[in-house]
Amino acid sequence: MSIQEERSSRMKSQDLIAGPWHAAIFRVRYQETDQMGVVYHSNYLNWFEIGRTEMLRELGFTYAGLESQGVLLPVLSAELNYKRSARYDDLVVVYTRMTAFTPLRITYDYEIRRAAEEDSKISVPESGFCEAPGGELLVTGSTAHAWVSREMRPVRLDRTLPDAYNAIWSALEQKGGAL
Amino acid sequence: MSIQEERSSRMKSQDLIAGPWHAAIFRVRYQETDQMGVVYHSNYLNWFEIGRTEMLRELGFTYAGLESQGVLLPVLSAELNYKRSARYDDLVVVYTRMTAFTPLRITYDYEIRRAAEEDSKISVPESGFCEAPGGELLVTGSTAHAWVSREMRPVRLDRTLPDAYNAIWSALEQKGGAL
Amino acid sequence: MSIQEERSSRMKSQDLIAGPWHAAIFRVRYQETDQMGVVYHSNYLNWFEIGRTEMLRELGFTYAGLESQGVLLPVLSAELNYKRSARYDDLVVVYTRMTAFTPLRITYDYEIRRAAEEDSKISVPESGFCEAPGGELLVTGSTAHAWVSREMRPVRLDRTLPDAYNAIWSALEQKGGAL
Amino acid sequence: MSIQEERSSRMKSQDLIAGPWHAAIFRVRYQETDQMGVVYHSNYLNWFEIGRTEMLRELGFTYAGLESQGVLLPVLSAELNYKRSARYDDLVVVYTRMTAFTPLRITYDYEIRRAAEEDSKISVPESGFCEAPGGELLVTGSTAHAWVSREMRPVRLDRTLPDAYNAIWSALEQKGGAL
Repeated sequence: MSIQEERSSRMKSQDLIAGPWHAAIFRVRYQETDQMGVVYHSNYLNWFEIGRTEMLRELGFTYAGLESQGVLLPVLSAELNYKRSARYDDLVVVYTRMTAFTPLRITYDYEIRRAAEEDSKISVPESGFCEAPGGELLVTGSTAHAWVSREMRPVRLDRTLPDAYNAIWSALEQKGGAL
Repeated sequence: MSIQEERSSRMKSQDLIAGPWHAAIFRVRYQETDQMGVVYHSNYLNWFEIGRTEMLRELGFTYAGLESQGVLLPVLSAELNYKRSARYDDLVVVYTRMTAFTPLRITYDYEIRRAAEEDSKISVPESGFCEAPGGELLVTGSTAHAWVSREMRPVRLDRTLPDAYNAIWSALEQKGGAL
Repeated sequence: MSIQEERSSRMKSQDLIAGPWHAAIFRVRYQETDQMGVVYHSNYLNWFEIGRTEMLRELGFTYAGLESQGVLLPVLSAELNYKRSARYDDLVVVYTRMTAFTPLRITYDYEIRRAAEEDSKISVPESGFCEAPGGELLVTGSTAHAWVSREMRPVRLDRTLPDAYNAIWSALEQKGGAL
Repeated sequence: MSIQEERSSRMKSQDLIAGPWHAAIFRVRYQETDQMGVVYHSNYLNWFEIGRTEMLRELGFTYAGLESQGVLLPVLSAELNYKRSARYDDLVVVYTRMTAFTPLRITYDYEIRRAAEEDSKISVPESGFCEAPGGELLVTGSTAHAWVSREMRPVRLDRTLPDAYNAIWSALEQKGGAL
């Protein structure tokens, strides 16, 4: 059985994966605060998207590139749980991992955490895949997405962009996700 | 048994309510679109807040007024289900109803629908309580909130602002919610 | 000399107009505030666009309609002067008037003012053309725009969409702008 | 004449400075695009603020720190000139420099430029002071600000926070701005 067939058979029985966590780090913007003195709650959804974008880049792809090839990935549903508030100028980390990657859809889990500032000069630490999320937990959440064409019709990624589909699988396996 | 006692006893056994639907109507802003040509998905959370704000106003209160009395209502959790996309300049309606109103918290359900334009001159129709949501369904969702002090500590609304608490109950009963 | 020729000759010598003021009224959103407790300063640019959109609608057109016919109107420059701050739930009015309308470009002036609330129940007053701006002055500004194609190349509106071009002129004249 | 007196005398005669350019680099977010397929024009004002924030941090201060000491720096006016559009996932640089720093106010110039991507893996290059702006010019602009108290009354920074005032001057001098 070829690798391709193995993957294919595994995917028939089990599409769920627990991919590795990816960290994307940035500063909270003044514009993102509200008059409660904390980050307005809808901004975390924007941050989830930063997490997805940077994780895909780390896998060797860009979401912009997929879109230019005619494949979009709109949000089907989203869930957010707010535990603590991010504040202006906080160094926050969006941890992102795939919880499903199939020819038809992707689901993601997120954790947004406040990073400790060891040094006030650190303005933009590095991002990348990591063992486990660290920092003070602020918000958790998840989103579900479907692959669609520019006309918003469902497409199978393995048929529309088979190279991208296989390469994302390989990259995920290499990064050590529990597939 | 006084009305107060009745309410109090009912609330002990059953805090859940299905309040009446409230409609708030507005136009989609250009700034709210993204390069997919539709409204960016985090904006619906902003719109849910418009729904809450206008519903409370219709009940005779303003959220700004409660806040100036020291009671805030941050979001604990949120859920969104995206069915269809709103587009620039669409006339959209946020339908909002309370699904719980207790001394400690409030939960809301939402439906965002596209209103038909009978006349291109209609720029801002009226909003208010209504029998049932109408228009093309775009997004459904819910949010949960807790009453807190400015220091973000939980407060009981019935003790901190008893007049507001009772008046909101009365207004809800009058509007015909199935309490 | 026909009306068309008159207009054309006047435009050759003098493209500048001082169109009538148009009012668009809405509530400040919680999301638009920042931790200073006032509206974050970039939101006024979003509000200017609401002013342009609603003014064009009142003239019998929609910007969405022009765009679907392939004519876009991107911003070339913008200027804002902040005098006082809008706050959450304020009833604000964007006053908009054209200061130039030519086959190649449009410029606008804006005044953002706080409307007095005679009645807390007033959530969305009517908008439309008016004699002169009223209310507490918050922000003034201006923007300049060019008509372009979808490929972002300059177009002459009088050649690309002559009906729209003439109709906007007629509507402006009818509304009593000092052309 | 002490350094303090020298500085003071120079400031009496000449408050204008041309500080060194500071670069802050980041990726364009999907949420920042609009249906024209480019960044919505009000976002550049948000980016100017990122420029100011990161430049102050590089000088050894944080705007968050100044605010917590009771000194705010609201925007009095802003000007933007749009030359080219930023797009989703572009690597953009906000170049910021002070053009005035006085006890009463600060003014800034900005250039927003698109950075070349030598390597698609570069997600967040370093920022800091630099000789001259580089990259494709997209937007230029300026903002003016006044030091105020939490009650929005003008304050003199040299009296309210003399240490901060002098330290910012020293840092600017050290960074080689043509003071």
